[in-house]
Amino acid sequence: MAVYTEVSDEALTAFLAEYDLGSLLSYKGIAEGVENSNFFLHTTAGSYILTLYEKRVREEDLPFFLNLMGHLFRAGLSCPQPVKNRRDTALGSLCGRPAAIISFLDGVSVKRPTVDHCRELGRALAGFHHAGRDFGMSRANSLSVDAWRPLFEQAGAQADTVAPGLAERTRADLSLLEASWPHDLPSGVIHADLFTDNVFFIGDALSGIIDFYFACTDALAYDLAICLNAWCFEPDGRYHRDMGAAMIAGYQEHRPLEPREVEALPILARGAAMRFMLTRLVDWLNVPPGALVQPKDPLEYDRRLAFHRKSSHATDYGWSE
Amino acid sequence: MAVYTEVSDEALTAFLAEYDLGSLLSYKGIAEGVENSNFFLHTTAGSYILTLYEKRVREEDLPFFLNLMGHLFRAGLSCPQPVKNRRDTALGSLCGRPAAIISFLDGVSVKRPTVDHCRELGRALAGFHHAGRDFGMSRANSLSVDAWRPLFEQAGAQADTVAPGLAERTRADLSLLEASWPHDLPSGVIHADLFTDNVFFIGDALSGIIDFYFACTDALAYDLAICLNAWCFEPDGRYHRDMGAAMIAGYQEHRPLEPREVEALPILARGAAMRFMLTRLVDWLNVPPGALVQPKDPLEYDRRLAFHRKSSHATDYGWSE
Repeated sequence: MAVYTEVSDEALTAFLAEYDLGSLLSYKGIAEGVENSNFFLHTTAGSYILTLYEKRVREEDLPFFLNLMGHLFRAGLSCPQPVKNRRDTALGSLCGRPAAIISFLDGVSVKRPTVDHCRELGRALAGFHHAGRDFGMSRANSLSVDAWRPLFEQAGAQADTVAPGLAERTRADLSLLEASWPHDLPSGVIHADLFTDNVFFIGDALSGIIDFYFACTDALAYDLAICLNAWCFEPDGRYHRDMGAAMIAGYQEHRPLEPREVEALPILARGAAMRFMLTRLVDWLNVPPGALVQPKDPLEYDRRLAFHRKSSHATDYGWSE
Repeated sequence: MAVYTEVSDEALTAFLAEYDLGSLLSYKGIAEGVENSNFFLHTTAGSYILTLYEKRVREEDLPFFLNLMGHLFRAGLSCPQPVKNRRDTALGSLCGRPAAIISFLDGVSVKRPTVDHCRELGRALAGFHHAGRDFGMSRANSLSVDAWRPLFEQAGAQADTVAPGLAERTRADLSLLEASWPHDLPSGVIHADLFTDNVFFIGDALSGIIDFYFACTDALAYDLAICLNAWCFEPDGRYHRDMGAAMIAGYQEHRPLEPREVEALPILARGAAMRFMLTRLVDWLNVPPGALVQPKDPLEYDRRLAFHRKSSHATDYGWSE
């Protein structure tokens, strides 16, 4: 959580002159997001988030993300709406970085989700998939099964310094995942990073979804598998089957899973855990000196993988007929 | 700029239950302030700043700061208003830290102040001194002339690693300041840290003053001398006499300086520069590993001291009859 780029009042005022957002009342850098610089922005027209995209986001992907947000918002999803400038584009430039203004969304992220939160999340995820159906753009998932072995090779011999045996069991998992990864499931736009920090609640009601910067085109059920990993485990690797059951049931209220998706759920969940274990492992082993961001523990996902290795049926995750 | 303490939704909700602020809509850590953790807080009652006081603020000083804000707000100054909880106190406890909620103030800090900004600041400073007149509490300035030599001894032999000759010229200045520091000037509550980041403007109008955590009881003209240092110099040490003149004139519209204050202005300005040079020097030489905050350059104030050494009369700062 950090602000990587300082924005002066003069630079911001010049930037805002391209928008119909009235005049500037205040802005504050917010300690949120690990990839970009974000500012809370208040103008006479309302409250917004100003994002400056830092180097980890590929500039050529930004139109996909911003158009997707606009599409989902118009489809009725509660998500930030990109604000277009007078040149009719949501993507501008500020302090030498690509920059965008999106509407401010109220809501609070829950640190410890309950069964009810999981049910709400399942419903919202199906709503997201539904709203994305007729989105015209596509973007390959650059962090899917083909990317995992190259990621693992980056960690290489260092993996076992993080946990004994990590290299061997990861290699075995990778072989299995590569051999059995399903490629024919119903696909569409997925969020691909719907962790608790990207979901807002007001009271017990889900109020919105944010941070679409990993969104891509992939199997819809894989998105659900990511959420099961992100929401229904304890850090020690214990799975809350009741939370998983509520999430799956909430999802199925709006979009019933097809039999082949139900069958694939365990391998998708195992793959999702592998994806986050690997990116965390690489970040863990490559903390730059003076880093502002504390890397996340890859072993949380290694422990989830231990659960997935023992789970062969969707019922293990809480699915029921 | 950093958030030192993470606050969970559960902890915050429990904390807010002691306040009449409706229900929580959102909160975000803001990258502002180097001493404390600050959050933008939105509830059904409005917008606020939540501050958790970290270890550099002495807990026993907090009632002074919070009562002062309340006093100044009631006296009509545009500054944050501390919000009292149901136990009728503005000071609570959150995540093991003293914590307070204050009203959110719109406005933008200017990075490069103009002559007009300086005049506005002068007026607001006199208004601050006026509003503080009947404040019943007092707090000694722990960073005044008596504190400077001990601060300098902390840097000691390392001073010359920052700039050649820094130790010798600082020692000479300290002797002069200690010998000639005025102790009989009109005194009262001063802000003592009114840098540009602590002053908000909306358009060209000053909209508020924030961050009272260095406020103390001291010579009123010393506060003006701090502002002349903070607002009217280029980083290379050049003084903008026209900006100083505007600030002094703005101040005198509301509170004309007494002759002894005019006479003392050069030594006060020199002392103010010394105070910030020294605290910056100590911070510069003691950056903890993994620090989230980039220390400020002490040499900016060493260069200001060079100007002050050549300036013996208030007219050098822009004062005129």
